[in-house]
Amino acid sequence: MNNGNRKGLNIAICGLGTVGGGTLALLQKNAEELRLRLGAELKVTRIATRTLHPEKLSGIENLSNDPLDAVNDESIDVVIETIGGVDPALEVIRQALVNGKHIVTANKALIAEYGNELFQLAQANNVTLAFESSVAGGIPIIKALREGLAANKIDWLAGIINGTGNFIMSEMTSKKRKFDEVLIEAQELGYAEADPTFDVEGIDAAHKLTIMGSIAFGIPLQFNKTYTEGISQITPEDISYADELGYCIKHLGIARRSEKGVEMRVHPTLLSKSRLLANSNGVGNAILVHGNAVGATLYNGPGAGAEATASAVVADLVDLCRHIQSGAASPVYPPLGYREMPSGVSVVDIEDINAEYYLRIPAMDRVGVMARISSILQAHNISIEAVIQKEAISETVPIIILTHSAEERQLNKAIDAIEALEDIAGKINRIRVEPFHGEAA
Amino acid sequence: MNNGNRKGLNIAICGLGTVGGGTLALLQKNAEELRLRLGAELKVTRIATRTLHPEKLSGIENLSNDPLDAVNDESIDVVIETIGGVDPALEVIRQALVNGKHIVTANKALIAEYGNELFQLAQANNVTLAFESSVAGGIPIIKALREGLAANKIDWLAGIINGTGNFIMSEMTSKKRKFDEVLIEAQELGYAEADPTFDVEGIDAAHKLTIMGSIAFGIPLQFNKTYTEGISQITPEDISYADELGYCIKHLGIARRSEKGVEMRVHPTLLSKSRLLANSNGVGNAILVHGNAVGATLYNGPGAGAEATASAVVADLVDLCRHIQSGAASPVYPPLGYREMPSGVSVVDIEDINAEYYLRIPAMDRVGVMARISSILQAHNISIEAVIQKEAISETVPIIILTHSAEERQLNKAIDAIEALEDIAGKINRIRVEPFHGEAA
Repeated sequence: MNNGNRKGLNIAICGLGTVGGGTLALLQKNAEELRLRLGAELKVTRIATRTLHPEKLSGIENLSNDPLDAVNDESIDVVIETIGGVDPALEVIRQALVNGKHIVTANKALIAEYGNELFQLAQANNVTLAFESSVAGGIPIIKALREGLAANKIDWLAGIINGTGNFIMSEMTSKKRKFDEVLIEAQELGYAEADPTFDVEGIDAAHKLTIMGSIAFGIPLQFNKTYTEGISQITPEDISYADELGYCIKHLGIARRSEKGVEMRVHPTLLSKSRLLANSNGVGNAILVHGNAVGATLYNGPGAGAEATASAVVADLVDLCRHIQSGAASPVYPPLGYREMPSGVSVVDIEDINAEYYLRIPAMDRVGVMARISSILQAHNISIEAVIQKEAISETVPIIILTHSAEERQLNKAIDAIEALEDIAGKINRIRVEPFHGEAA
Repeated sequence: MNNGNRKGLNIAICGLGTVGGGTLALLQKNAEELRLRLGAELKVTRIATRTLHPEKLSGIENLSNDPLDAVNDESIDVVIETIGGVDPALEVIRQALVNGKHIVTANKALIAEYGNELFQLAQANNVTLAFESSVAGGIPIIKALREGLAANKIDWLAGIINGTGNFIMSEMTSKKRKFDEVLIEAQELGYAEADPTFDVEGIDAAHKLTIMGSIAFGIPLQFNKTYTEGISQITPEDISYADELGYCIKHLGIARRSEKGVEMRVHPTLLSKSRLLANSNGVGNAILVHGNAVGATLYNGPGAGAEATASAVVADLVDLCRHIQSGAASPVYPPLGYREMPSGVSVVDIEDINAEYYLRIPAMDRVGVMARISSILQAHNISIEAVIQKEAISETVPIIILTHSAEERQLNKAIDAIEALEDIAGKINRIRVEPFHGEAA
């Protein structure tokens, strides 16, 4: 039998933190399995790390503190960038691409914010820039979107794509605890950083959504147009009212094709408790994708962690090695899945979206307040789907309203008008509802 | 920008039933999207169909009743085999491969039973034989196993891979209905065939499991060694007792690496109601895969239907087109994911597996019967995890036992010995339990 070209890869790892260290360990642990899959070896021949850990690095000859040493090494086929952040990672990738090295990176911020430039540079130098590990850890979602679902026009996708946030929301829900309290526990467990902003304010999720949205719709990466709202304003009361209405609250990233363009938004979201997505709890990730041929498919698994992320890094190496072995003269996959980007597809401003809404209105316990709220909603073309108003236990009584679909601009105006009423004791808490109309899973 | 080679594909579709017709329709519906993805056209230039439907076929010039016409057409790059069954599909594929055509097929029976020979023939002729659509319809599970999870040594996978069976089990569970009754409804709804054997006896699932197991473990396709047990013996009582114990019953395909080799088995299975897999209801498919690096990932979606299956067929075409465009001189992916198969991995006989078991024992309402059953189990090294014994409402009283892990050979001997007791009024119903020890999702 002709088993094809048996060329392996000479690999440099730049950055030996959680993901870089995990990748090195995985390449060692599964070396025999990988050799069987490839008929060749994935050989780490260079490592660049700020702080050298000789105990981890037996058998690696070329150690350096300077990632550019790896990038300039002629014997290296592929550079794994696991430095993280922008500086010096961006420069390392740029230089590696110019030097004709393939890149595998887990750096979601870099891809979301500098990807357009980097993909162009990769193409100009006829090398592959692979980034499966940048989104949803070990779940092969880039491959699913770009290749597995390539027959489809993607209608929308919605994902739980930040494990920290999902852990916090899950704990708040199952144990009726407050945000601040669960955040501290998440920090103690190592799920949340000392500065949790990136996770709880949705920036990390927005990076991932930006990347998935580009692949889904064939649009340039536009991180700055992705609407981002965190979970710190969600209260146990909101979770409890949502529950009463048949919903749970998840921090979702949603990308959707609409008549006005493409919606790209990260925010807390009510979704029916019967959905599989609603039942994805803890630090895992889950992404629901709807294609115009296949319908809805769901991808669930660990979205972070050294080994899970390394699984995706090494999968990119295996792919690259197979491509080279097949004799491919140029990268097999366009990085974002399209040879030509569809023209005229722009990201919709958040005020232009149509959604259903949950409103928690801190009303005074007065005659006629519900009528005044209703007439303001009606005046803004917003119709009511459900209301909860409990007996007042103090001067204020929360009124919970679920609306039918409305334009967010109109909703914002209605909220301003309601908050201006004398009957209203504070700010209205507004959470978007995602019905996934008519779709399974 | 250099957009690479813009070669498209000339395609012949052989067989214009549900999947072939769906594929033709999808290529037409998403033609523009596919052109953007590829910068080239996927052009159906030939169709072979037993019964010509001119109304469906506007724009197709080369129609024929004989699939070999397509296979022998020099202008054709790839043949889509959607004839189904073995004859003449097997001969069509063989001849096409010999003629140097790439193949895309949805034919799970053919791959599971003749795949070893066909993959060898494809390799000898340096062409790709793609079969994503043969397993789990629109869910890109072949790609996930062979590529997305390629960094892993796969520990096990477990899937709901027959939509008909899952629909029946879901209906029996949610509506407390009997098997025969739900089967008739499934037939009326078009979910089950007039002869439902393939679905309800697990043969269809065994075909898919055979394929997934080969890719997961790098072993030859061995359909005849896949243990297969159907769902027709499951009663509403079993579902109700399982429910009481915290379980639901699903028809699963399970492939697992064990110390003795590889287990390959399709059978009704108790699994905890808290699992995502337990919550995959209706005609969908769901596959849980455990890799030694990534942990557990789940893939859920439509496992059948014209458009969902066509989604996978066309994804294979897109992949193939990209491979050719990149200049690949040989197939990019080894069909089963391995260049070299691991040696000495054999499929374990069902009697050699270790599992936990649910037993429903139709006992007479007599003093000491539970003691006699217990001592037989103990004599066969089987320990009891839970028992349900309700008040007798007739002469017999069902005793429900959940066992701890035991060897199936011992369990079978114990069942024989218990059935031989004078206290036992009939056959014992035995269902395997899958605990997925220590694993999420």
